[in-house]
Amino acid sequence: MFISEKEIEIRYAETDQMGVVYHANYLVWMESGRTTLFQDLGFTYAGLEEQGYLSPVVDISVKYKAAMRYGQVAKVRTWIESHGRLRTIYGYEIVHEDGTIAATGFSEHVLVKKENFRPVSLAKIDPAWDSKYHEVKRVEA
Amino acid sequence: MFISEKEIEIRYAETDQMGVVYHANYLVWMESGRTTLFQDLGFTYAGLEEQGYLSPVVDISVKYKAAMRYGQVAKVRTWIESHGRLRTIYGYEIVHEDGTIAATGFSEHVLVKKENFRPVSLAKIDPAWDSKYHEVKRVEA
Amino acid sequence: MFISEKEIEIRYAETDQMGVVYHANYLVWMESGRTTLFQDLGFTYAGLEEQGYLSPVVDISVKYKAAMRYGQVAKVRTWIESHGRLRTIYGYEIVHEDGTIAATGFSEHVLVKKENFRPVSLAKIDPAWDSKYHEVKRVEA
Amino acid sequence: MFISEKEIEIRYAETDQMGVVYHANYLVWMESGRTTLFQDLGFTYAGLEEQGYLSPVVDISVKYKAAMRYGQVAKVRTWIESHGRLRTIYGYEIVHEDGTIAATGFSEHVLVKKENFRPVSLAKIDPAWDSKYHEVKRVEA
Repeated sequence: MFISEKEIEIRYAETDQMGVVYHANYLVWMESGRTTLFQDLGFTYAGLEEQGYLSPVVDISVKYKAAMRYGQVAKVRTWIESHGRLRTIYGYEIVHEDGTIAATGFSEHVLVKKENFRPVSLAKIDPAWDSKYHEVKRVEA
Repeated sequence: MFISEKEIEIRYAETDQMGVVYHANYLVWMESGRTTLFQDLGFTYAGLEEQGYLSPVVDISVKYKAAMRYGQVAKVRTWIESHGRLRTIYGYEIVHEDGTIAATGFSEHVLVKKENFRPVSLAKIDPAWDSKYHEVKRVEA
Repeated sequence: MFISEKEIEIRYAETDQMGVVYHANYLVWMESGRTTLFQDLGFTYAGLEEQGYLSPVVDISVKYKAAMRYGQVAKVRTWIESHGRLRTIYGYEIVHEDGTIAATGFSEHVLVKKENFRPVSLAKIDPAWDSKYHEVKRVEA
Repeated sequence: MFISEKEIEIRYAETDQMGVVYHANYLVWMESGRTTLFQDLGFTYAGLEEQGYLSPVVDISVKYKAAMRYGQVAKVRTWIESHGRLRTIYGYEIVHEDGTIAATGFSEHVLVKKENFRPVSLAKIDPAWDSKYHEVKRVEA
């Protein structure tokens, strides 16, 4: 299992009138976590799109444990929770600088062709990427 | 069971380079759905905050079924899925104009005091609101 | 001169920890104002994109006069400030329900081809739209 | 004159269906630029708010020169354009990695008391910060 780490300086724009980070923004940080995971493993999502593929989210869930605030730095820990023929689940932990868990989450993605949103298999379009995911995934799909 | 309906004209800002609505924006629409549900039942969240309370999200999940695009109108159907002493779960369906389901979701909320984020019971601070939720909820907590 | 009017129910997500609407969100409302202006004049921006054109912002300015809050309804008044061969300037007033001006702004747009971002003239690709803009514009370009 | 530099990894969420960064997001980056400028000069905006003050934007303008895309890194260069008794203007340049200017902008801010939005002078509440601004500003107010 490989865990990627990405630091996020919390933006004023990300807060709401509760004085804490608005909950939907955690999904944006999770996306930054994925981008970093791709890079750490030697791949780029931008490259995948240039080849004509997209990787939309089909399922997302987040549990919020502790509020985060402007002026703090969040750390997003991202890993491959499971990786099957057509679906990949990413796992996330968002932590405070002192290690306190602010949130945990999962997102499930498919890979589709840009022009028709039809599913494709990562194994077919990028076998090296697919192998790497099998190598570092946490559990069987 | 009562289902509130709120129409959302999809904004250009809500799309991403996939050409469809960015997935985190569905959470913002779900929040608009809740605001509308409150109004339909005769209450206002803004009023609750003025009294010194907040209702943060502690758990959220969304299943994405069909993409939505700029120029379309989304309808958010919101209901009380369950309502307990300290937690309320809202249910959501986001549908296309032709009735196709674009997404379904749930969000779980607690009620806390603004100054210390300590949980309070809706039954104590607004018994009428609490009763109404029990009356219209879909299932037992 | 024609002025379009669009009501915006202010979303919780649009506030920040100042307790008021975050300033960048006014630009999103201005975009909703433009979309409504297009519709009121009988055109759709989505249709323009389907034909292979985009209308990016090249210059934007906003003066903030009075804060806006969650629970309020903003009204966006949008008009054609000027319309030249290659550039169109839209004017905006964002007002409170009691008529108080919350913000005023301008945005300047060009029209470009999607595939290469090269400028094109609205007069060439949609003469009816171009004529209408000349008819309703506030001042000469 | 002092120029602060802040790198921004462009997020997927920041793009729109044009395939480039949505124009309102540049304002969020400018805010990150200000935060970094504060830190570079030895001050924190979060600290100012804790003392009971806010610094809302009263005027903003941006000129967009070249599109930016997901996968790129933006650099935000921020400086004090002018600093008067009640108003401060920040200047910004957003550049591509190769130095190409993507956008330039200015934002004008006042300082107000949190509880009543009444203007206060930075010279009164934080003389060291005020002096520093006069020392590093580009032009006279």
